[in-house]
Amino acid sequence: MTYQFVRTPVPSRTLSPDQLEAALRAIGAERYHNLHPFHKLLHGGDLTKGQVQAWALNRYCYQAAIPRKDHALMARIDDREVRRAWLQRVLDHDGHGPDTGGIERWLVLTDHLGLPRDYVVSQDGALPATRFAVEAYVRYVWDNPGLPAIASCLTELFAPKIHAERIVGMLEHYDFVEDRVMAYFRKRLDQAPRDCDFALAYVLEHARTPEQQAQVMDALTFKCNVLWAQLDALYAAYVAPGMIPPGAFRPQEG
Amino acid sequence: MTYQFVRTPVPSRTLSPDQLEAALRAIGAERYHNLHPFHKLLHGGDLTKGQVQAWALNRYCYQAAIPRKDHALMARIDDREVRRAWLQRVLDHDGHGPDTGGIERWLVLTDHLGLPRDYVVSQDGALPATRFAVEAYVRYVWDNPGLPAIASCLTELFAPKIHAERIVGMLEHYDFVEDRVMAYFRKRLDQAPRDCDFALAYVLEHARTPEQQAQVMDALTFKCNVLWAQLDALYAAYVAPGMIPPGAFRPQEG
Repeated sequence: MTYQFVRTPVPSRTLSPDQLEAALRAIGAERYHNLHPFHKLLHGGDLTKGQVQAWALNRYCYQAAIPRKDHALMARIDDREVRRAWLQRVLDHDGHGPDTGGIERWLVLTDHLGLPRDYVVSQDGALPATRFAVEAYVRYVWDNPGLPAIASCLTELFAPKIHAERIVGMLEHYDFVEDRVMAYFRKRLDQAPRDCDFALAYVLEHARTPEQQAQVMDALTFKCNVLWAQLDALYAAYVAPGMIPPGAFRPQEG
Repeated sequence: MTYQFVRTPVPSRTLSPDQLEAALRAIGAERYHNLHPFHKLLHGGDLTKGQVQAWALNRYCYQAAIPRKDHALMARIDDREVRRAWLQRVLDHDGHGPDTGGIERWLVLTDHLGLPRDYVVSQDGALPATRFAVEAYVRYVWDNPGLPAIASCLTELFAPKIHAERIVGMLEHYDFVEDRVMAYFRKRLDQAPRDCDFALAYVLEHARTPEQQAQVMDALTFKCNVLWAQLDALYAAYVAPGMIPPGAFRPQEG
């Protein structure tokens, strides 16, 4: 059973590829999580170290799930060439051979923030809402056909801007963040555009009916919701009203 | 919902790793498809070219699904190190970079047998029973936890013997088979032992309760059934009684 999270109206006629791309970019302009108040606080230097720790350990859940999401996607793809191209994402995140990969780079950040690695990897301190959102993403990709599954990755269209802002903002504002630990984001500045070029070209080529076009817009909206919900949960637990649910990470500082 | 295909009795007490390995090898000794009459005909030179074509194009469905199966498995594995090790299977089958991979090597065989590549890849001429068995395998790996999913691969313990027999038998007996097109099987002689060493070690380490041990024996039995059912279907359609179902491949020769 495929749960329908959002319902984009079906366009009255088929959009041209340019129109579809514009429609997808408009979704990001309205819904990508760079607009969330939590990110403004994070990048503006307005969070305590404890709040940054909470962000990093919750975001780890998302990072750790991305290769599973990509495997779930490839498990549904019959076209060997698409699988071969998509595999690069797994090689980037899990690493391959001597490259220890993006998840390891994220753990360098959480190490540096003073979080015990076992605790981060266990995900025991993460907010339940984070884990629900992340698993909804893995499930979505498994439960849906390849076209919307691939379209759900198109938040990468908007990622380089947020990563660049984050590198500058966090280095400038937090004395507990140093250049070395921002390696994850630097690396993504190169990887995300390459990944999303492939995904965008695939979507523009394969979404050929109004129904398919609504489906891919739906997928991108869904994915924006996955990211936004994670920041809503962080904000509610650690900013305002600041109600940390039972069992979740509690910062040690005031 | 996990459909239970077989029900191995739970051992009355925990087996030692050696005992569990022996129990798994006993399953193969009884159920691995090298024992199937179709394989005896294939390796003994007793099939027509049309029957060998039918085998190769049906077996393509299985080959083509293996990377999807491995992706489905990795989508359920939280341990990054296990995913990194398991990924080699996908690199082998789909190929990576300049290596075009095992599925392509299989298509070299079907090309050589005179089957149009588009027809083979479309799977349109495959027996429905083949495709049901193959998809049952992909589903099993997604629907079950990592331990039985990994155990289902242990038919690789028995594969090198069948591949070696096949190379010798087919080259000796069929003038329409030549050495070059047996590259798939030669390659698997190296790959399968490495793969199954990892899988066997994982299973022996992680199946620690009688229930888990029954579960991995169940998984291997299920997988033997997946392979056996494909040969039953080939035998029934192309050997005896020779009832080819509607839409399936029909050999052109008498």
